[in-house]
Amino acid sequence: MGFRNFEAQIVAVLATPEPSHFRTEPVDHLQTDLAGIIGDRHHGFTRRAGAREPWYARGTEMRSGRQVSVVAVEELAEIARRLEIPRLEPGWIGANVVVAGVPEFTLLPWGSRLVFGQGAVLVNEGDNAPCRFAGAEIARHFPERPGLDRQFSKAAIHRRGIVASVERAGPIAPGAVTVRVPEQRFWTGGTLL
Amino acid sequence: MGFRNFEAQIVAVLATPEPSHFRTEPVDHLQTDLAGIIGDRHHGFTRRAGAREPWYARGTEMRSGRQVSVVAVEELAEIARRLEIPRLEPGWIGANVVVAGVPEFTLLPWGSRLVFGQGAVLVNEGDNAPCRFAGAEIARHFPERPGLDRQFSKAAIHRRGIVASVERAGPIAPGAVTVRVPEQRFWTGGTLL
Repeated sequence: MGFRNFEAQIVAVLATPEPSHFRTEPVDHLQTDLAGIIGDRHHGFTRRAGAREPWYARGTEMRSGRQVSVVAVEELAEIARRLEIPRLEPGWIGANVVVAGVPEFTLLPWGSRLVFGQGAVLVNEGDNAPCRFAGAEIARHFPERPGLDRQFSKAAIHRRGIVASVERAGPIAPGAVTVRVPEQRFWTGGTLL
Repeated sequence: MGFRNFEAQIVAVLATPEPSHFRTEPVDHLQTDLAGIIGDRHHGFTRRAGAREPWYARGTEMRSGRQVSVVAVEELAEIARRLEIPRLEPGWIGANVVVAGVPEFTLLPWGSRLVFGQGAVLVNEGDNAPCRFAGAEIARHFPERPGLDRQFSKAAIHRRGIVASVERAGPIAPGAVTVRVPEQRFWTGGTLL
């Protein structure tokens, strides 16, 4: 499969200070192994199915696919603009890596790679569905705005960033990142119901 | 993310009888856990980088993404037609699962799910690049056709099936399979170099 490369920037990295909560806080760098961010709430090759997978019984052990949350600074600004709030901190929604310079970041094709200068490589596993918990965390910072939690899901659709898995272990820190985009093709076979 | 479902068939399942060789042979069913097919050569969450990943140092421990090889009976027939050979057995190229009834199977979007009747679910991790080893194994069955190994790579491009990871563990056997295709979008952002 062919890939095309282009350059972007990592402007912040964040980790969960207390694994009991999805909220993240800025750190100097993240250390990863092939199961995710070492010490992070979402570390692991597998996880339990939850509300995002209504087709699996809750609690079923499943492949993770959600080791790392990556968001784009431009998309967070656009969500904030739509919600009419002054800012949306990446830590409020549990982001681990904040990218700048990738237009329509959330729409990057599945299988795109983020290649970091220090050796780590992430694989895009698809867009991160907005959830009520993240919305509630945002709303907590704007108590004068009832209903903000529910408005988040709509404002954030296709802008909430991606989930990713570690393909090659290594540190992740602010600085240059190469985005490798696989060849895109539309599948038109079959008659979809 | 929205999915659309349609129905297809599994016509054969195969496993590696001797883990020293990638060749597979038909079996009644495959037993999977979240690291792949139990007892198979490719079982594991991680693997060593090889010739398919020239961008990694050979031998680097990396995320697998290649637990299971899935091919389509229609595409194998088309490869055989192009190579002018009477048949191409899925075991010769190390396939584990043989699907029928999915047009352009190899082009299914990354992230498509194969949901098997007995509970296993596979995630499409992209098309399987044809390799010389598989070509050599085919050529071994047609000694009167020198050069067949090299011709395979060209004839099989976009027809050699996909690689997949196990999302939910369970047995895989011939019978019905539901293909779940994620919403497809073209990413057009940025100026690709």
